[in-house]
Amino acid sequence: MEEILPAFDSAFSIDCLIFGFDAGELKILLIERNEEPFKDWLALPGYFVKQDESLDDAADRILYELTGLRDLPMKQFHTFGEVNRHPQGRVVTVGYYALIRINGQKELRPISPYARKAIWRSVNDLPKLAFDHSEIFSKGFRIIRKRLNYQPISFDLLPEKFTLTQLQGLYEAILNKKLDKRNFRKKMLSYGFLKELVEKQKGVSYRAAKLYKFDRRKYAKIFQSEMTA
Amino acid sequence: MEEILPAFDSAFSIDCLIFGFDAGELKILLIERNEEPFKDWLALPGYFVKQDESLDDAADRILYELTGLRDLPMKQFHTFGEVNRHPQGRVVTVGYYALIRINGQKELRPISPYARKAIWRSVNDLPKLAFDHSEIFSKGFRIIRKRLNYQPISFDLLPEKFTLTQLQGLYEAILNKKLDKRNFRKKMLSYGFLKELVEKQKGVSYRAAKLYKFDRRKYAKIFQSEMTA
Repeated sequence: MEEILPAFDSAFSIDCLIFGFDAGELKILLIERNEEPFKDWLALPGYFVKQDESLDDAADRILYELTGLRDLPMKQFHTFGEVNRHPQGRVVTVGYYALIRINGQKELRPISPYARKAIWRSVNDLPKLAFDHSEIFSKGFRIIRKRLNYQPISFDLLPEKFTLTQLQGLYEAILNKKLDKRNFRKKMLSYGFLKELVEKQKGVSYRAAKLYKFDRRKYAKIFQSEMTA
Repeated sequence: MEEILPAFDSAFSIDCLIFGFDAGELKILLIERNEEPFKDWLALPGYFVKQDESLDDAADRILYELTGLRDLPMKQFHTFGEVNRHPQGRVVTVGYYALIRINGQKELRPISPYARKAIWRSVNDLPKLAFDHSEIFSKGFRIIRKRLNYQPISFDLLPEKFTLTQLQGLYEAILNKKLDKRNFRKKMLSYGFLKELVEKQKGVSYRAAKLYKFDRRKYAKIFQSEMTA
């Protein structure tokens, strides 16, 4: 083993898994590819990292160029490095994810000609994606579901003020199963990190539901002290 | 943006963060480098990924070649891709970690001449490491600490049968603080995933303590049902 950089056709890329929640449905952000290979296929927004940019910078740039969205709080979830995952050479791709509110996001508009358009698709209605992106999606979705049990990530998908029905709908969409209303509410309220607001739901024809806010400080306190008390 | 693989001096590497627990101390596995750059420095066991091997395979091979340990249950924790992290070119490195019992591990013996030796060092007594390995260690240690709050990873560091004092010692070593004995025991036992054994501690001059086993099935059940009840 010599301390020499191996010279082989290799590259790093980034693929982004952007989840959004809209009208009771969990959605994922995709692009329609305008270039070979996999021309006309749907794919996760992803591209090569440049020689002179860090992975985090590349993730921000690539998502912006392909979808028009920028400055999302993206985080790594896994790096994919199977030997033959890319038809043109050895490409190791770093998966980044974010969870965002679809409402309030500006219009999707790719800057790069490499993406014909960017669209939201329900996670329950996905075709086979380009490259190994279907596997990247599955792996990422599994990781997100797990984190849902111990991190407040789900709150990033909701409006700042939300009803317990909305919160339950989000959990049901992510876990893909019906939850018992009474148990769910009891459990959620027992944690103490939901803050009930005086303000109630507006513009509904039925009895207005209570609105809640997520208390990040309380949440952090509860979960920090879990083991260290 | 063209769909052509950028040709630049780049490589992927793996760096391994192997934690062990021994006599109340949390330790990390290091190698003494026998090659430039950073000759004679201590470093995490790490090297380049070959053109024709997956990241997971590379992690196993590299750890084995540099330390003699093989078939550890390693998992990715983060990928590091700052532009200037390696003095010889652009190298993106994927961090893998494992938690193991030091007792019962076979002798450390590097196969590759690139490591002069492999050693365990207390996490509280680390010099500045080669490359950005001090940062990789810090980031990894932070991630492990966090996971300690919601995953049973700590049990991988203990013998199969252990006392509550040993378990508390492990948590104290990882969190780097003293914990209240009564609270710790109460909390740990309340989870229901510790199985008390009939057998007691042997070969001690003081009153033999109860031995426990970790019940993985119960643990999985408890944490799966957390949100989905």
